Amino acid sequence: MKIAVFAGSFDPFTKGHESVVLRALPLFDKIIVAIGNNTSKNGFLSIGERIELITEVFQSETKVEIDAYEGLTVDYCKRVHANFMLRGIRTAADFEYERAVAQMNKSMLPSVESVFLLTTPELTPVNSTIVRDILRHGGDVSQFLPDKANVYKLIEKRKAKN
Amino acid sequence: MKIAVFAGSFDPFTKGHESVVLRALPLFDKIIVAIGNNTSKNGFLSIGERIELITEVFQSETKVEIDAYEGLTVDYCKRVHANFMLRGIRTAADFEYERAVAQMNKSMLPSVESVFLLTTPELTPVNSTIVRDILRHGGDVSQFLPDKANVYKLIEKRKAKN
Amino acid sequence: MKIAVFAGSFDPFTKGHESVVLRALPLFDKIIVAIGNNTSKNGFLSIGERIELITEVFQSETKVEIDAYEGLTVDYCKRVHANFMLRGIRTAADFEYERAVAQMNKSMLPSVESVFLLTTPELTPVNSTIVRDILRHGGDVSQFLPDKANVYKLIEKRKAKN
Amino acid sequence: MKIAVFAGSFDPFTKGHESVVLRALPLFDKIIVAIGNNTSKNGFLSIGERIELITEVFQSETKVEIDAYEGLTVDYCKRVHANFMLRGIRTAADFEYERAVAQMNKSMLPSVESVFLLTTPELTPVNSTIVRDILRHGGDVSQFLPDKANVYKLIEKRKAKN
Amino acid sequence: MKIAVFAGSFDPFTKGHESVVLRALPLFDKIIVAIGNNTSKNGFLSIGERIELITEVFQSETKVEIDAYEGLTVDYCKRVHANFMLRGIRTAADFEYERAVAQMNKSMLPSVESVFLLTTPELTPVNSTIVRDILRHGGDVSQFLPDKANVYKLIEKRKAKN
Amino acid sequence: MKIAVFAGSFDPFTKGHESVVLRALPLFDKIIVAIGNNTSKNGFLSIGERIELITEVFQSETKVEIDAYEGLTVDYCKRVHANFMLRGIRTAADFEYERAVAQMNKSMLPSVESVFLLTTPELTPVNSTIVRDILRHGGDVSQFLPDKANVYKLIEKRKAKN
Repeated sequence: MKIAVFAGSFDPFTKGHESVVLRALPLFDKIIVAIGNNTSKNGFLSIGERIELITEVFQSETKVEIDAYEGLTVDYCKRVHANFMLRGIRTAADFEYERAVAQMNKSMLPSVESVFLLTTPELTPVNSTIVRDILRHGGDVSQFLPDKANVYKLIEKRKAKN
Repeated sequence: MKIAVFAGSFDPFTKGHESVVLRALPLFDKIIVAIGNNTSKNGFLSIGERIELITEVFQSETKVEIDAYEGLTVDYCKRVHANFMLRGIRTAADFEYERAVAQMNKSMLPSVESVFLLTTPELTPVNSTIVRDILRHGGDVSQFLPDKANVYKLIEKRKAKN
Repeated sequence: MKIAVFAGSFDPFTKGHESVVLRALPLFDKIIVAIGNNTSKNGFLSIGERIELITEVFQSETKVEIDAYEGLTVDYCKRVHANFMLRGIRTAADFEYERAVAQMNKSMLPSVESVFLLTTPELTPVNSTIVRDILRHGGDVSQFLPDKANVYKLIEKRKAKN
Repeated sequence: MKIAVFAGSFDPFTKGHESVVLRALPLFDKIIVAIGNNTSKNGFLSIGERIELITEVFQSETKVEIDAYEGLTVDYCKRVHANFMLRGIRTAADFEYERAVAQMNKSMLPSVESVFLLTTPELTPVNSTIVRDILRHGGDVSQFLPDKANVYKLIEKRKAKN
Repeated sequence: MKIAVFAGSFDPFTKGHESVVLRALPLFDKIIVAIGNNTSKNGFLSIGERIELITEVFQSETKVEIDAYEGLTVDYCKRVHANFMLRGIRTAADFEYERAVAQMNKSMLPSVESVFLLTTPELTPVNSTIVRDILRHGGDVSQFLPDKANVYKLIEKRKAKN
Repeated sequence: MKIAVFAGSFDPFTKGHESVVLRALPLFDKIIVAIGNNTSKNGFLSIGERIELITEVFQSETKVEIDAYEGLTVDYCKRVHANFMLRGIRTAADFEYERAVAQMNKSMLPSVESVFLLTTPELTPVNSTIVRDILRHGGDVSQFLPDKANVYKLIEKRKAKN
C-alpha cells in the first residue's frame, strides 16, 4: 500500500497545497495531510481550526486523511507506516531548503522517499507566510485559499466566542 | 500622474536605497518613501529616527515624499493613489521573494504595477540586516549609508536624551 | 520624453513579452520593440516574419514602435535616444543573467537605466526557446502566443512560397 | 495502470539516473526510459549504444522498458499512454529549467503530471555534460556510471569496428 | 604567518564543518575555530559545551585553536591578527548570503580575505539548523556529527547535573 | 610547496580574473594561470594572444606563471604537481556549476582541493562572454580589462598582419 505524508504547518492551507494533493491522488493509495505542531512558531490559526478547514476541503476525497503531529516528521512517518513524503515546490529557494530536509530525512529513514510535485504556475506566488500576513492585517485572501475552506467564517466564529 | 510607493523597513536607509530612488526619479512624478511600521520586528532605529534620516537625504528633491504606514502595503497604495510600487533588487534570493510579494500584490490590487531597478554593483552587498547588525555592535557603517544621513549624530542625540 | 527600448530576439514574441510591453505603456512615452539581429544564432522565424507578427500585436498601440538592429544594444539605444531599457524577468536564473547585462550596459552607457517588470505568474513558464522547440516539432503553441500574432498563418504563407 | 516516462538524452546514462529510476519503481507499474533523439546536439554515444547500456543496467527489472523517440516528449507520452513524467533534480539551476518545461508540458497535455525525485547527495555533482566531456578526453568516469553499464567495453567495441 | 578564522555558531559543529577545517589545514599556519557568541539566538548547546565538543574533534591537530568571541567578526579578526576568513559553502542560497557578508567584511577590513571551500557532496544536506531541530526532538544525528564529538555523552552529563 | 592552478578560457582575461589572482597570491607559493585549449569553442583571441596579454598583466609578479593546456584540467594539475585549484565565483548561477565541476574533480583527483575567492562587488557583472560579445561588435571594454592588458593594441597588430 502506497501511503504518502504531506506535512506542513498549513497556516493556512492554500489553493497551492490543495492543488498538490489533488494531483498526487492518482499516485498513492492514501495521502495523510499532517499538520506539524511546531509550538515555537506563533501561528494565526489554531491546530483545531486548521484541521477543520482542511477537512472541509477534502470531505469528498476518501483517500485523504487529516492529522496533526508533534516531533520529527520522520518519526511520524514511521508511526503511520508511510513510504513516501509528498512535497510541493514553488521556487528555487524552496527547492534548496526542501532538498536539504529531504536528503537528511532519507539518511535517517531510508525506507521513505520524498516525491515532489510542482505548484501550478498561477499559484506559484501563493506563499503561506505572505497569506498569513495579509490575513492578520484583515486583507482579503479568498482567491488564494481553496473554495471549500472558508477561513472568514472561522474567524467570525472565533470572534463570536470571545 | 505617476505616483510610486517605495516601501520598506529602512532600518537603516542605505546608499543602495538612495541610489534606487535617485535613478527612479526620471520615471515618476512623485516617489513616496514609505516606512512600513511592522511592530513585530524589533528595530534598531525608531520610526521617527528613520523619517528624520530619510528626510535629510532627500531634502532637495521636490518629487520625493517620506511617510510611514501600518497595515498592508496594497492598502497604503490605494490610500495614496499610487499606481506603481518601486522595488530595488540585489540578488537572486531577493528576486524570488520580491516576485512572490509583487505577484500577490498584483492579484489583490491589479491597478498597481511593481517596477524593479537593480542596485549598482558596488552596493549589491549592502544589506540592511547586516548593516543593522554592525550598527548594534558599534561598528562603522558610514560607507554604506547616504552621505547626508548621519546615523551617528542621531545615536549621539539618543544617548544624550537617556 | 521617456523612450524605452525593449530588446530581444523574439523568436517568437510570446504572450509573456506582450504582457510586459502592455503593462509598461503607462510608464513611457514610447516603447521600441527592437529585434536584435544576432546572426550567429540560427532562428526559426526570419527578422521580417518577426516584425510582421509583432506589428500585428501592437497595431492599435500608438506608443509602440517595432524595429530591428545589429550590433550592441547600448549603441542602438544611443541612436534612438532611449533613456530606458525595458526588461521582463521570469526566474531567478533569468535574473542573474539580466543583472550582469544591465550592470555592464550601465557601465558603458550610464544615461540609460534598465527597468524590470515581472511576467505574470501564469506566463512565467513561457520561454521562447522552449516555444521555438515546440514550433519546430510541429506542436501547438497558440496558447503561449499573443492572440493577434498568428504564427501558423505565417508558416502556411512560408510553405506556399516554397 | 501507472506509466511514467523518464526522458532524457542519457549521453551517458549515469549513476544519478539509475538511482532515480530505482527509487521511483515502487511508485509506478511501468517506467519507460526514453532517449530523446535530439539530432541537433552532437552526441558522444550513438542512440544504439545508449540503448545497449541502459538495457544492461535494467536487465533484471521487469517494470523498466527502454525506448528512443523523436519529436516532442508530450507527443511521445500520448503515444505510449503515459500519465506521468518522471524527472530527477540535482540543483536549483536544474529546478528552474525543469519547472519551465514541466509547466509548459502540463499546459499542452494536462493529463500528464510531472513527478520529481532528488538525486542522492553523493551523486548530486554527477552531470552528464561534464561526464561526457571527461569521456571525450579519455578520463576515467567509471565511478559516475552504473556498475552494470560498461561504457569502456562499448568504446573498445567501437574502435574494433573502425 | 597565515592565520584563518573559521567563525560560526556551531550549534552543533557538524561533519561538514570538520571536513572544511581538515581540508583547509594545508593552506594555513593556524586555523581558529571561533564560536560567535550571538546571545540573541537561543541555542541548543551552551558555548562551553560547543568548545568542549570542538576541542575533542581537533585534539590531535596542533594547527587548530578553538575560541569564542562576542561582537563583530571583523573586530575579532583584527584582535587575533588573522589575514583570512575561512568559509564553507553548501548551496546557492548559502552562497548569496556568504557573498554579502564577505563583501561587506572586505569593505570594513580590506586586509582580510574570505576563502571558500565546498562541503563534500554527501555532507551538503547537513545543515546545523536542521541537525539542531532533530537533536531537540530527541532524534539520532550521530551520522551528521564528527566521530570524535559525542554530543549524546554531553547531553547525558547535562541531565546528570540537573 | 603550495601550487595552485587558475584554469579558464580567459577570452579575454578580465579585471575580475586579475583581482582573484592578486588576492590569492598570499595563499600560495605559485599560481599557474592555465588557459584551457578548448578547441570546440570558437574564441575571439588566439591562445597566443591570450598568453601575451596575461603575461603583460603579471610581468612583475614572480609567483605567477602562464601556461596553456589541452585535455582535462585534473590531468593538467597532476602534470604540474598542483595541490590546489583556484576559482573565482561571481554569482549563484556560477556557484552551482563550479560546485559540480569541483566535486567531480575532487572525486577523480582527491589530492587537489578547490579554493574559491569572490570577485569584488564592482567587478561582479564582468563576464567574459559578455565582454567578448562587446569586443566582437567593436565596443569599448577597457574598463573591464586589466590596465596592463591592452587588447586594442593586440587587435591593431592583428589587423596590420592581415
